[in-house]
Amino acid sequence: MPTTANRQIVLRRRPVGMPKPDDFDLVEAPLPSPKDGEVLCRTIYLSLDPYMRGRISGARSYAQSVELGQVIVGSTVSEVLESRHPGLAAGDRVLGYDGWQSHAVAKGGGLRKLDPKQAPISTALGVLGMPGLTAYVGLLDIGQPKPGETVVVSAASGAVGSAVGQIAKIKGARAVGIAGAPDKCEYVVRELGFDACVNYKTGDLAAELKAACPGGIDVYFENVGGDVLRAVTTLLNQNARIPLCGLISEYNATDVTPGPNLRPFLFNRVLLKGFIVSDHLGRMGDFVKDCGGWLREGRLKHREDIVAGLETAPEAFIGLLQGKNFGKLLVQVGEDPGR
Amino acid sequence: MPTTANRQIVLRRRPVGMPKPDDFDLVEAPLPSPKDGEVLCRTIYLSLDPYMRGRISGARSYAQSVELGQVIVGSTVSEVLESRHPGLAAGDRVLGYDGWQSHAVAKGGGLRKLDPKQAPISTALGVLGMPGLTAYVGLLDIGQPKPGETVVVSAASGAVGSAVGQIAKIKGARAVGIAGAPDKCEYVVRELGFDACVNYKTGDLAAELKAACPGGIDVYFENVGGDVLRAVTTLLNQNARIPLCGLISEYNATDVTPGPNLRPFLFNRVLLKGFIVSDHLGRMGDFVKDCGGWLREGRLKHREDIVAGLETAPEAFIGLLQGKNFGKLLVQVGEDPGR
Repeated sequence: MPTTANRQIVLRRRPVGMPKPDDFDLVEAPLPSPKDGEVLCRTIYLSLDPYMRGRISGARSYAQSVELGQVIVGSTVSEVLESRHPGLAAGDRVLGYDGWQSHAVAKGGGLRKLDPKQAPISTALGVLGMPGLTAYVGLLDIGQPKPGETVVVSAASGAVGSAVGQIAKIKGARAVGIAGAPDKCEYVVRELGFDACVNYKTGDLAAELKAACPGGIDVYFENVGGDVLRAVTTLLNQNARIPLCGLISEYNATDVTPGPNLRPFLFNRVLLKGFIVSDHLGRMGDFVKDCGGWLREGRLKHREDIVAGLETAPEAFIGLLQGKNFGKLLVQVGEDPGR
Repeated sequence: MPTTANRQIVLRRRPVGMPKPDDFDLVEAPLPSPKDGEVLCRTIYLSLDPYMRGRISGARSYAQSVELGQVIVGSTVSEVLESRHPGLAAGDRVLGYDGWQSHAVAKGGGLRKLDPKQAPISTALGVLGMPGLTAYVGLLDIGQPKPGETVVVSAASGAVGSAVGQIAKIKGARAVGIAGAPDKCEYVVRELGFDACVNYKTGDLAAELKAACPGGIDVYFENVGGDVLRAVTTLLNQNARIPLCGLISEYNATDVTPGPNLRPFLFNRVLLKGFIVSDHLGRMGDFVKDCGGWLREGRLKHREDIVAGLETAPEAFIGLLQGKNFGKLLVQVGEDPGR
């Protein structure tokens, strides 16, 4: 029975502080039709990522906001149902940016065709997609870890953090994670091979981090901000580097969150560099070659946290902002013919 | 009548907050005698610089602290009275690191002989010395201003700041100063050729800075920290660079001063880099060639604020931390034969 309606999740109102389920609306729209050069896609996986909090806030950021009533943005892996683009055919699996909806019409030229034989198609949203590229360029191009140095990464069991620590190990550095649950810490050490992982929710983070980093910290890959950053700051070595990738602990703040005191940045000659992965697409070729290879060799592991049904996206997204997910968070919007 | 005593200012107790005159002691010691390879120097000029606050604090920093009872450290220009080093003779003028005292014995190999015909010897402590090199490497190597970009510098009439803005202009950028008095702002614009200068003590710094930087801020050369940095942060352009040279507003703080919120650093891809001039001595040759040339051509101006007598050093140093000096602060400890 062919689907006739497009199910969409739209922004009902701008969240204040932590988003609430009724900040979002589930609506139905007619199934769109592709014009010349376009394809009709059926969403299989929707990626949920922390940056989306900024897009629905209306505050000044590096990208345009989602307007009220609009479909929330997001990367998707989809199946082509109908193609009016010469390079794509019905049945193809593609990486796109269709957002929180079950179907979409997209320009064929903006989609990347995926080969399910190379890797599971969901990895195009995680370890072999933007989160993986984020880890790769932030760590290697800004962090520049040297063998024997200590790399610390927050949100260590997440899509970005888990790749950061494993790439650090591949490059000969020590990897120390920071995560928010005992099972996440255990996974990071046992499964991913980090040297240590500290639970920021129990005990004294600064003391535990110091014990885990007896030689200080050379690279801190920043995903969270706030108290974790302040604790790290006291342990930075001379010429430490901080790729600033995210500040998830601050995304729901209704006040301006103060940053860390900068005196250690001065006398330790610290480099801090904010970056946005979309500025670094020129590294995609190197990334796919390196990380694709490490993945096939079993040296780069990843974990997916898949929730079922488009209607679960708001709650899953709120959980992501609260650190409830465990691994790369995906919404299974429709059936994956390859699984 | 030959001098027989060495007058010294030593650390009596570690200051808490803003130093007080009785944190220091003026004492007399016997005139030291040089051994083989050493020279006896008579101090002409003593340089007073903000970094000294860190050296007398006892807190962890990038260099060793001055102990109680020790002579305070500092760069000096001196006359050689007696030489037991083959490269130096009595009457030579030298740049050294003799500290807050009228005389010192120093290893001859650690001194740089000055040529009074090339430039006034006091400039070796300012525009052609460490403050000048600090401006040069911080601005050019970290800030990397491009023609047409806007460079903002705090403490703009000071030894470092005045050079930063003028070098920015020489490189084709707009230069905007921040200073703490109307006469300093006027000097920076009228004498040094900055495009604008904002007085951070009057009115609304953020609004005045915005008016002075209609195209935003591309490089912020940071000397002060605190509220000024927070105001600058809101105006940073994408890919802005912040050479972090000093945080003078925080040096007397007894609490940990919070830093700026880092979200603008993230979405504007800002680079912040702490640096210490002594790491960059390899740039001395380029610096002397460039800045010496600009000085002789009249393109690089400088101003000295000279106080007379070693005994005035504590009060002058406290004034420096309060922004009371106007130009490069020097103590004239002894007669300059060339003036």
